[in-house]
Amino acid sequence: MINDLVLRAARGEKVERTPIWLMRQAGRILPEYRAVRSKLSGFKELVESPDLACEVTIQPVDSLGVDAAIIFSDILVIPEAMGLPYQMIEAKGPWFEKTIQSQKDIEQLRIAQADDLPYVMNALKLTKRELNNRVPLIGFCGAPWTLLAYMIEGSGSKTFSKAKKFLYTQPQLAHQLLEKITQSSINYLKGQVIAGADMLQVFDSWAGILSPEQYTEFSLNYISQICNAVKEVPLTVFAKDAYFARKAMSQLNCATIGLDWTMDIAESREIIGNTKTLQGNMDPCLLYADQDIIKKETIKMLKAFGPNRHIANLGHGIYPDTEKDKVKFFVDTVKEFRH
Amino acid sequence: MINDLVLRAARGEKVERTPIWLMRQAGRILPEYRAVRSKLSGFKELVESPDLACEVTIQPVDSLGVDAAIIFSDILVIPEAMGLPYQMIEAKGPWFEKTIQSQKDIEQLRIAQADDLPYVMNALKLTKRELNNRVPLIGFCGAPWTLLAYMIEGSGSKTFSKAKKFLYTQPQLAHQLLEKITQSSINYLKGQVIAGADMLQVFDSWAGILSPEQYTEFSLNYISQICNAVKEVPLTVFAKDAYFARKAMSQLNCATIGLDWTMDIAESREIIGNTKTLQGNMDPCLLYADQDIIKKETIKMLKAFGPNRHIANLGHGIYPDTEKDKVKFFVDTVKEFRH
Repeated sequence: MINDLVLRAARGEKVERTPIWLMRQAGRILPEYRAVRSKLSGFKELVESPDLACEVTIQPVDSLGVDAAIIFSDILVIPEAMGLPYQMIEAKGPWFEKTIQSQKDIEQLRIAQADDLPYVMNALKLTKRELNNRVPLIGFCGAPWTLLAYMIEGSGSKTFSKAKKFLYTQPQLAHQLLEKITQSSINYLKGQVIAGADMLQVFDSWAGILSPEQYTEFSLNYISQICNAVKEVPLTVFAKDAYFARKAMSQLNCATIGLDWTMDIAESREIIGNTKTLQGNMDPCLLYADQDIIKKETIKMLKAFGPNRHIANLGHGIYPDTEKDKVKFFVDTVKEFRH
Repeated sequence: MINDLVLRAARGEKVERTPIWLMRQAGRILPEYRAVRSKLSGFKELVESPDLACEVTIQPVDSLGVDAAIIFSDILVIPEAMGLPYQMIEAKGPWFEKTIQSQKDIEQLRIAQADDLPYVMNALKLTKRELNNRVPLIGFCGAPWTLLAYMIEGSGSKTFSKAKKFLYTQPQLAHQLLEKITQSSINYLKGQVIAGADMLQVFDSWAGILSPEQYTEFSLNYISQICNAVKEVPLTVFAKDAYFARKAMSQLNCATIGLDWTMDIAESREIIGNTKTLQGNMDPCLLYADQDIIKKETIKMLKAFGPNRHIANLGHGIYPDTEKDKVKFFVDTVKEFRH
C-alpha cells in the first residue's frame, strides 16, 4: 500500500501525520459525482452498477486527496438481500413496500450471503484493482439495530417510534430479527474483505434514540458479535449520538470508535482509554464557515486528539450543500498539520 | 393550592409522593382534545382562542389526573410576536414564509412584549381561574437558540444546517438575534407569571445538534440570562439531547433541570449535584408496552431518582399515537408508588 496511514492509525501504529477520510465523501458535493448521477434513473442504479460505483468511489481520492476510499453503496442492501426490497425516493429517503410485523415475516427472511450482493462484491473487486494500492478501501454495513429500525418502520423517521414500539412489545421477535441481520452482516463483511476491503465500518445511525439499557440489549450485543466474528481487517464502530455507550464500546473487539461532534474529545479518550483509535469528529456545518475558521477549528481538533490513534473525519456524513472547495481545504489542513 | 406537589418538588421541599405531569399531555392522545380540535380550521386557531386553549389545558388534569397543567400554546408565538408569522402545516409542522437572513431582517424584528400575545395571557388568566387552585399552572417558552433555529431555517429540519451555518458564518448577527429573542422571552415569561403561571419551563428542543462549545456560546448564555431575569416562580430548563451541558446547567439560576431518556439518572444526579430538582425522564415509547412492563420500568425510574427533588415526566413529549389508557396507567403508577 502506497498510503496506508489510515490502516496504521487504526492499528495504533505511529503515523507521520493524521490521516483523513470523510463520511459521504463520494457524493453530491463533487461535480464529477453529479455528472455520473445525472445520467442515471436513480440512486440504486448507481449502487447496483459496479463500474459506476467504482468510479464514484475513487473520485474523492483523486479530487479531495483523502487517505482512504469507501465503497459507494448503502446500508439497506442487507435488508434487500434478506428479502425486503427498498426504494430510494428522491429528496425523501428510503422506503420499504413490505415491512416486518410478525414472526412469520421474520421467518420468511433469508440470512444473506455475500453472493446475494454480487454488485457490491464486484464493485469492491473493481475498485481494489483500480485504486492500485494508492489508499486503503473501506467496506461497511449498517448496525443490526439501525437496519431493524428501517425494516420495521419502513422509512426514515424522526423518532422511529414504530421500531422502538417493537422492541418494547415484541422483544423476543426483535432478538430473532437482530440475530438474522447479524448473521447476514457477518457474511456480508467477510465477503467484502475477500473482495478487497482493507478496513470495515459499522454504521449505527440510529443509536442515539435508544435508552442506554435498550442500546446494550438490542444494539451493542449484536455489534459485539460482528466485531468478534470479523477479525480479518481493522473495524470501526460509529454509533451516532450514543455518548452513553462509549465506556461499553471500549470493550468491543474493534480497532476504532467513531465520535460525533457533540462528544468532547478529551472526555471520550478518557472514557474509552488508549487501546482504541478514535475517528472524527468535526461538525459537518463547520465546512460552511470561512477558511480561517475552518483552519482554526481543525487544528484545535487535531491537537485535542493528539498525534496517534486518530483518524480525522467529520462527526457525520458531509451535508450535500457543502462547497467542494471548503471540503478540500479541510482535508488539506489536516494533511499539512504536523504535531 | 390544593395540590402543590410539583411546586414543592421544584423548590426541593419534601413531598409525600413524586408528582407527575407530561410534556404534550394536552393533545392528540385525548379523545376530548381531538373533539375540540376537529371543529377548528387548524392548530393555530386553538392556540389563539383563549377559551378553547383553556379547555384543552385542563382536560389532562381531569382525565389523566396529572399534578400540573401546562398552558396549551406553541413556542413559535414569540417569533410571530417579533414579526415572523408562522403556519402550522398538518402532518408537516411549522413553516415560516419569511426567514432571517441579514442584519436588516434582524433590525426589523420587534422585541416582543407580553401584551403582543394577548391570547396567551388571556388563556392563562382563564385557566388559572378555571383550575381554581387544583394544581399549578405551567407557562413556557422556547429557548433562544431553538427559536433562532426555526427563524433561520424556516421550518423543522433533521440537521438545521442553515441555522448552524448562520452560527458559523454570521456569529455577530446570531448574537444580535439571540439578544432580541432573549429580551422578548423574558418579557413574555414575566407576563405569563402576572397572568397566572405558577411555574415556567424553557424548552431547548434543538440543543443536541450543537457542539458543546457552540451550545455554551449560542444557547446556554441566553438561557442563563432568562434564568437570572425571571425569578418570580420556579423555572425548569429542558435541553433535549444536551447531555454534554449537564454540568454547566447545574450552575443556572433555575429550580429544575429536565432530562431525556438517554441520560442515566444516577450519573445525571452526580453531574448536576443536589441543588436542582430533576424532571423526567421515561422514554415516550415505553407507553407502547404492556402494563407490567410500564409498571416495572416506572418503578425502576422512581427508585433511581429517589423520593425528593424529582418531578416525574417523559424524556420528550408524548407521541400522538400513544393509547390514553397507557398514559393514565403510567400516571397512576407514579401516583401510587411510595418510596
